[in-house]
Amino acid sequence: MSTLVLLGSSRRNGNTEHLVNVALQGIEHEKIYLLENNIFPIVDQRHVTGGFSPVHDDYERRFLDFLKHETLFFATPLYWFGMSGQMKIFFDRWSQYLRDDRFDFTKEMMKKRAYVIVVGENPDPKIASLPLIQQFNYIFDYVGIEFVDYIIGKGNYPNDILEDSIALKKAKSWNQGLKAGVSKET
Amino acid sequence: MSTLVLLGSSRRNGNTEHLVNVALQGIEHEKIYLLENNIFPIVDQRHVTGGFSPVHDDYERRFLDFLKHETLFFATPLYWFGMSGQMKIFFDRWSQYLRDDRFDFTKEMMKKRAYVIVVGENPDPKIASLPLIQQFNYIFDYVGIEFVDYIIGKGNYPNDILEDSIALKKAKSWNQGLKAGVSKET
Amino acid sequence: MSTLVLLGSSRRNGNTEHLVNVALQGIEHEKIYLLENNIFPIVDQRHVTGGFSPVHDDYERRFLDFLKHETLFFATPLYWFGMSGQMKIFFDRWSQYLRDDRFDFTKEMMKKRAYVIVVGENPDPKIASLPLIQQFNYIFDYVGIEFVDYIIGKGNYPNDILEDSIALKKAKSWNQGLKAGVSKET
Amino acid sequence: MSTLVLLGSSRRNGNTEHLVNVALQGIEHEKIYLLENNIFPIVDQRHVTGGFSPVHDDYERRFLDFLKHETLFFATPLYWFGMSGQMKIFFDRWSQYLRDDRFDFTKEMMKKRAYVIVVGENPDPKIASLPLIQQFNYIFDYVGIEFVDYIIGKGNYPNDILEDSIALKKAKSWNQGLKAGVSKET
Repeated sequence: MSTLVLLGSSRRNGNTEHLVNVALQGIEHEKIYLLENNIFPIVDQRHVTGGFSPVHDDYERRFLDFLKHETLFFATPLYWFGMSGQMKIFFDRWSQYLRDDRFDFTKEMMKKRAYVIVVGENPDPKIASLPLIQQFNYIFDYVGIEFVDYIIGKGNYPNDILEDSIALKKAKSWNQGLKAGVSKET
Repeated sequence: MSTLVLLGSSRRNGNTEHLVNVALQGIEHEKIYLLENNIFPIVDQRHVTGGFSPVHDDYERRFLDFLKHETLFFATPLYWFGMSGQMKIFFDRWSQYLRDDRFDFTKEMMKKRAYVIVVGENPDPKIASLPLIQQFNYIFDYVGIEFVDYIIGKGNYPNDILEDSIALKKAKSWNQGLKAGVSKET
Repeated sequence: MSTLVLLGSSRRNGNTEHLVNVALQGIEHEKIYLLENNIFPIVDQRHVTGGFSPVHDDYERRFLDFLKHETLFFATPLYWFGMSGQMKIFFDRWSQYLRDDRFDFTKEMMKKRAYVIVVGENPDPKIASLPLIQQFNYIFDYVGIEFVDYIIGKGNYPNDILEDSIALKKAKSWNQGLKAGVSKET
Repeated sequence: MSTLVLLGSSRRNGNTEHLVNVALQGIEHEKIYLLENNIFPIVDQRHVTGGFSPVHDDYERRFLDFLKHETLFFATPLYWFGMSGQMKIFFDRWSQYLRDDRFDFTKEMMKKRAYVIVVGENPDPKIASLPLIQQFNYIFDYVGIEFVDYIIGKGNYPNDILEDSIALKKAKSWNQGLKAGVSKET
């Protein structure tokens, strides 16, 4: 049950990442900072003869990382009432890999379990991020990833999240659950 | 009442653009194909001393275009249950311009009126795109843009949209309303 | 393809009903004015020995009407951002009939197709009624009813709906589609 | 800061009520079991000469209770992806009291703070109840009630909720917060 974190934030060590660290304290995991990768928006070639062309950027390497892990954390600040643009591009590019003969996309996805962490501040994210939670649910449902749970945290300035005791408790609960799950497997 | 279209699609002449053309038939307008512009994801420097640094890409030119128009069309296929990544990046970068002394961002936004066109196919977009419509509503509400109306069209393959008679009728209704509005002003 | 209209409004001849009449002009149908029926809220006896007791009100008669029709119109004003209480009670009572040996609830539901009409005024119903549309979708999906389409109209005072040309056009489109469907069957 | 609980469930001592009891352990409060009151659906007389007529049922007494309290708990099982019909009727009847000269409805509402507890089971309520959470938010926003927070619990059979450790922890957090608030006032 190896674990991968996809970080949509455009800065390191933000409030979103803090919740990830609480949830994964003591658990081996890999992190991808999406902004530190050079990933282009998708060019839709679904209806072009020959289909999609290969794209020369960091995406394929990141997608291969992604395939290797079964437990996924999608962690993004709430930017303009959605996931960050760089995280959205990560999903958009799936459309190419869905059609790529090298992978059994659907079969791979069905092995995965996802946790979502969203942090916003104003308007109150416990309401303002609900369309995003619904979007994640649609995505996971469409490809067959199990949507385990989500945390909606509140914060804007660095370290604001330390005041959100309910979000922190939920991250700790996840941590206990993940540790129990890990030890059961061994 | 000059009109600007922001196209989020990653191909020209798709179903989304067809609805735009029906709605704006006979009405002067400018189009921005977001994919044909080189626009980077935002680097969040809100909490960095000195604030945001200038970014050398096509965004500023596009943002200046955007400021000049009062009627806006946001047209995007439903990619993974949201707007396309390139359109999301367009919004994300607003966070920098909100804090830019050269513009009175809020005052400019409050003059604007927005129309949204979304086209999806499966699952049925009349339900699957509702979180995206809610997201657009939050964005417009936050900055003070009037959200005039939206069309949710159905289509995937080129020209599918010609079968969606209700979406086409609504686009024609907008066209009549916009023409009546234009002639009133002259 | 017999047609039943369930009217959630608490007055006759309102804006909601006007849209129903446009959509069903020239098409045989039956109407149930929920408010003119004496229907009690459900008493949850799912976990009680012996299960649900019979309830002496108008519900069973209305439910039997409901079972006989394949095309359904659910028409309700947007009251406090949801369907009217009397329509909600209609659905709540399904929980008893789901467990009633006299009916094959699921099999019956899977033959049905539903149209939804919602009319609101302020805040703008094209956004404010989206949670209700999502709720209808969940309900239909859960029991296997096909959700054909919905109209969100705008109006409050009597006859306001006559100004909502897009809602009226959509109701007329449904009318044409339903007539074409009816004639095909004969 | 007196506290009132409105229980929408149609049985006593259910999972929803258990979460209420945890949140209000040691805090004085009053409970209204909506089902045990005789409350009729609203008859819309907004557009009738003379306006609304008095209704002879238990509503007015319950509404007067409601006015006296500043902290409100709305606790309902997720019935058909919404609040229970009897709770919906409680809100629908507000439309009459909004127009009642005896009360300054808006001024009274603006003093109030609301907590929402929803318990569902299948489909997973953490997603399936989001339209309901959005509906509560619209209602509170419309009348000026502060929406403090919500809990979405999971359970169906009696005592299922004891397994939902995250919901229980959140209820306990509320309890601590409410107690701290209470002691500050004294």
